[in-house]
Amino acid sequence: MADVFIALVHYPVYNKNREVIASALTTIDLHDLARLAATYELAGLYVVTPLEDQRRVAEDMITHWCQGWGAGYNPTRRQALSLARLARDLNEVKAHIAEISGREPVLVATSASEGVKPKAFSEMTPLLAGARPLLIIFGTAWGLTEEALADCDILLEPIKGRTEYNHLSVRSAAGIILDRLMGRI
Amino acid sequence: MADVFIALVHYPVYNKNREVIASALTTIDLHDLARLAATYELAGLYVVTPLEDQRRVAEDMITHWCQGWGAGYNPTRRQALSLARLARDLNEVKAHIAEISGREPVLVATSASEGVKPKAFSEMTPLLAGARPLLIIFGTAWGLTEEALADCDILLEPIKGRTEYNHLSVRSAAGIILDRLMGRI
Repeated sequence: MADVFIALVHYPVYNKNREVIASALTTIDLHDLARLAATYELAGLYVVTPLEDQRRVAEDMITHWCQGWGAGYNPTRRQALSLARLARDLNEVKAHIAEISGREPVLVATSASEGVKPKAFSEMTPLLAGARPLLIIFGTAWGLTEEALADCDILLEPIKGRTEYNHLSVRSAAGIILDRLMGRI
Repeated sequence: MADVFIALVHYPVYNKNREVIASALTTIDLHDLARLAATYELAGLYVVTPLEDQRRVAEDMITHWCQGWGAGYNPTRRQALSLARLARDLNEVKAHIAEISGREPVLVATSASEGVKPKAFSEMTPLLAGARPLLIIFGTAWGLTEEALADCDILLEPIKGRTEYNHLSVRSAAGIILDRLMGRI
């Protein structure tokens, strides 16, 4: 079974007008994705933002729940958020995974839109059973830029429900994607 | 295909000390569950709370996104939140569904804990193909009270990931449950 990491990326992403921005941190996303990481036995969650003030917010929050008052109040939250680490960009994430896993990760982008040659969830099985770590990347705001998507090795197919509606929150989408990939292994 | 409704229940639920409380509304839950409802073609989302001030918060929020400034700013959010309705308790929800669907709903409770004789996700197929509407119930805080669970027709098995950790957010859990039930039909 491959080591699986996830990254929540705040830069580079699009805003509503398709301008490239660094999005604001949403602390509830960190909680929810960390709880998913604990549920699906992930090797780690990276919170990616280059903005110093946003890094401080994330650090304060993670410290509160892992070492501060929150750690005693809710040990299960400590367990989840102890999987979270900060990174300035995806290169830093890749380098960190390579250092701790001994191999370069396969970068798996997720998107709500149909892209070029997306991989079906069912096609991921060999990679999940492989030796290289996987890094599953979730964009915030209006999604990862095309340039960032192009740097990934694989684009995962979008979640299709029963309608054309494709505007899930990253909190729900990440749950569905991780469950489809790893909920029945 | 049965009409499927979901309910987000704020009373009666347990707090951390297993006291029965009415939990506070978390507006992001309404957004996320409404977006799931739009994705999986649900017949509606009920926000259940008996507290008048909390009902006003929910009403203001839903009106903002369905008719106010938000409706023009983000039409996909309007589409999702137009599926949301308020109810004071589960009896009101049952009566409303019976009125609009012509049949009493089957009440399906969800829980993070193992209960008595839970139904597996795979066993839900006949009900999903049946004539009676389904109401899938999500508790907030530390979950639905035992009394409320006992009033349901079916208890769905808890989500099992790859560990014993069973502390997902309702935003992620609802996504995973709806996808397991309806994502591949």
